[in-house]
Amino acid sequence: MADKNLKLCLLYDFYGNMLTEKQQECFELYYSEDLSLAEIAEHTGITRQGVRDSIKHAEAALLEMEEKLRITEKTQKLQEGLAEIVAMSREAERINRIDTPSLEMSGILRDIEKTARKLSEETL
Amino acid sequence: MADKNLKLCLLYDFYGNMLTEKQQECFELYYSEDLSLAEIAEHTGITRQGVRDSIKHAEAALLEMEEKLRITEKTQKLQEGLAEIVAMSREAERINRIDTPSLEMSGILRDIEKTARKLSEETL
Repeated sequence: MADKNLKLCLLYDFYGNMLTEKQQECFELYYSEDLSLAEIAEHTGITRQGVRDSIKHAEAALLEMEEKLRITEKTQKLQEGLAEIVAMSREAERINRIDTPSLEMSGILRDIEKTARKLSEETL
Repeated sequence: MADKNLKLCLLYDFYGNMLTEKQQECFELYYSEDLSLAEIAEHTGITRQGVRDSIKHAEAALLEMEEKLRITEKTQKLQEGLAEIVAMSREAERINRIDTPSLEMSGILRDIEKTARKLSEETL
């Protein structure tokens, strides 16, 4: 079984709904609750081997979905681009404040920043 | 079978890779190439009923994936937000050109617009 790791948890955030209920339960207990296979077996009434298989299948399914859909890869690029837009709108506002600031410009730059932040939150 | 429609084709663009090869072939011949069930049957060597089943299963799988993952819904919101950022950066540039334009401001606003357009293309 792969080490408990961040990448699988990120994939789970995106694709978890596509797994079976049993896979979701075992995956969450193992990765989010940090229970051992034996503890999950006791908790769910599945055999230890059954738990292990369920988690392995869930991991394989998550990796396969990312290979086919590449949502997390696209989302990461998107997040980087939106962060750049936030930084640029703040830099533009800094320039606007030099000499004679335009209130109208200020308002638009704030709206650009707000929109980029909102999109960033919604796509995570 | 549902009418040939735009929504299913949009879903196919996002989730098509998750379908079986046979489903992809039948779906594309039916929706993109606009062949009839009988023509697809002749072309693929599958029975007409087999083609119909394959397309129905593909449609159901696409709708189920969207219900679980909501990628196209999120992408649509994202596209709207990015279009707003493009419009706002152009409006800011219009304001910047009034009275004493700042070249530095102009450059940043162009970069914001360029970044938003790039993200928009990459996520489609």
